[in-house]
Amino acid sequence: MQNANRQIRLIARPDGLAGPEHFDETTEPVRQPDTGEVLLETLLLSIDPAMRVWMNEDPGYVPPIQLGSVMRAGGIARVVESRIDGLAPGDLVQGRLGWQTHPTLSGEGLHKLDLTMGDAEAWIGPLGTSALTAYFGMTAVANVKPGDTVVVSGAAGAVGQIAAQVGTLNHCRVIGIAGGAEKCAMLRDSLGLDAAIDYKAATDLSADIRQAAPNGVDVYFDNVGGPTLDAALENMATLGRIAICGRISQTAAAELYGVKNMGLAIGKRLRVQGFIVSDFNARYGEARAWLAGELKAGRLQQRLHILDGLEHAPSGLRMLFEGGNTGKLAIRVAT
Amino acid sequence: MQNANRQIRLIARPDGLAGPEHFDETTEPVRQPDTGEVLLETLLLSIDPAMRVWMNEDPGYVPPIQLGSVMRAGGIARVVESRIDGLAPGDLVQGRLGWQTHPTLSGEGLHKLDLTMGDAEAWIGPLGTSALTAYFGMTAVANVKPGDTVVVSGAAGAVGQIAAQVGTLNHCRVIGIAGGAEKCAMLRDSLGLDAAIDYKAATDLSADIRQAAPNGVDVYFDNVGGPTLDAALENMATLGRIAICGRISQTAAAELYGVKNMGLAIGKRLRVQGFIVSDFNARYGEARAWLAGELKAGRLQQRLHILDGLEHAPSGLRMLFEGGNTGKLAIRVAT
Repeated sequence: MQNANRQIRLIARPDGLAGPEHFDETTEPVRQPDTGEVLLETLLLSIDPAMRVWMNEDPGYVPPIQLGSVMRAGGIARVVESRIDGLAPGDLVQGRLGWQTHPTLSGEGLHKLDLTMGDAEAWIGPLGTSALTAYFGMTAVANVKPGDTVVVSGAAGAVGQIAAQVGTLNHCRVIGIAGGAEKCAMLRDSLGLDAAIDYKAATDLSADIRQAAPNGVDVYFDNVGGPTLDAALENMATLGRIAICGRISQTAAAELYGVKNMGLAIGKRLRVQGFIVSDFNARYGEARAWLAGELKAGRLQQRLHILDGLEHAPSGLRMLFEGGNTGKLAIRVAT
Repeated sequence: MQNANRQIRLIARPDGLAGPEHFDETTEPVRQPDTGEVLLETLLLSIDPAMRVWMNEDPGYVPPIQLGSVMRAGGIARVVESRIDGLAPGDLVQGRLGWQTHPTLSGEGLHKLDLTMGDAEAWIGPLGTSALTAYFGMTAVANVKPGDTVVVSGAAGAVGQIAAQVGTLNHCRVIGIAGGAEKCAMLRDSLGLDAAIDYKAATDLSADIRQAAPNGVDVYFDNVGGPTLDAALENMATLGRIAICGRISQTAAAELYGVKNMGLAIGKRLRVQGFIVSDFNARYGEARAWLAGELKAGRLQQRLHILDGLEHAPSGLRMLFEGGNTGKLAIRVAT
């Protein structure tokens, strides 16, 4: 058994993008679990846009990460030793593990994985938190209905891929926005979207949306904020709904973009609603049943982008904001 | 009986503010009503922010006013001659009269006034369309609840005064934003608001809202858009609701203001919703029953700002955008 717990700690708060310069690696002896605790071996760590927000001195809706602490992160781990009833060595759990190879944690917030629904990669991907976010954003926030025209930004990302497929599986016409020809080809060819717009190649994003959705957009699922939100507002149909899930274009921006088209919400009677996935935690079972069902039937898929080795977590976080990943980004710490 | 119908026609589309230079006065003989029509004598004409939008080549949600046509406007009129069953000379009606003294109109869109609920001034004011707008914005859109902290911008205006009082009468803490000490004093002293903020005197509107609402704003009723919306977004409480009713600060702006704080909608889980009053026309009876009940009980009031003479309609429309009125602005054409 491994006796060392490798950890990556936050040592400086970024102004713009986060990267390796804000972190430091430490090693501590593995700590044996007390009553009510488990010793875990980390398998996969999720890299999510919200992590950059958590690094701020005032993240807003969650406590900040203290300087010198292990970086906060969700992931999948295997139980090594357990002093918790109902968790046994070999079980897989999901929880807030942090960037470390061998965390010792209380059972609170740990969720034992049902491996009949999917394996560890499925649980970091199409059954994971970003998939739940997509499910509730599309259904409970945006009230997507068969026949709707849906636009998803950040469509090749972790949340975006699932949001787009919640749309196609609900018989919507779905248009994805992503950066680069490769991502757009993946959205059309692998995920079966009706259209994909490469925002990096676009000279007039609003015109491109209008061409793809000439009758207007009923649902816009926003992962990016900024000028893309303005372009979507221009193309919304009457009684359209906008689910604001993220704003990755603005998270590390030096100056916030000003959205000029909010006034269109009046004549079009738009509903624009922000949400976070934990608002729906009483309904996670419902979402996982749907996601696992579609996954088993082969109708839902998620492209993962996996980097091997804990040491790649800091550069992975930077990659996310530079759009270097195609699919849900995760770090493989062990197998 | 009067034989001439004085009319004010739109002759040019404004870029910025509308004013007398965009209109011309004409006189035509009064036209006798055909079957299904009435000849009316206009008593009061409502001056509303939406009228400036209607003057645009593409107003968005309604057809434009053709150049050379009588300016579109709602108001109250007395029936002079009727060829419609159920309308008799002397009855008062509400409808889209236009800027003219003696319109001859079909019965479609005319609403016979119940004078037991209120007189002509009540029907242009606290029972009129702007009052209905305020009622549905606060109740159906913003879901105002007892105990909520409510901020209303344009609070001394036609819609704002009623929106603020829908708040106070529903046991909310209500903060009004208006321009000038006189309007703010009226809001506090006559309408009984808990606080009023003079945006013209404010050096930091967001800080002023924070001081008046230290625990956050549950409902923001927005009549003005622009930087005031940004300041409100900064101060919203978790699960707050924003009803976007108007954006008078932007209607004639040379360049639209960019709203920087939309991203706060995520962590705060805000719902931002635009609306127009006609979406609720199946429920006007409910709203009028409530408004008339509060009016009769002496708990609801509306300050009117009346200009005498049809010829003042164009300058009245300019006054509205310059904030020169205190209260609901209307033109008295006849008594």
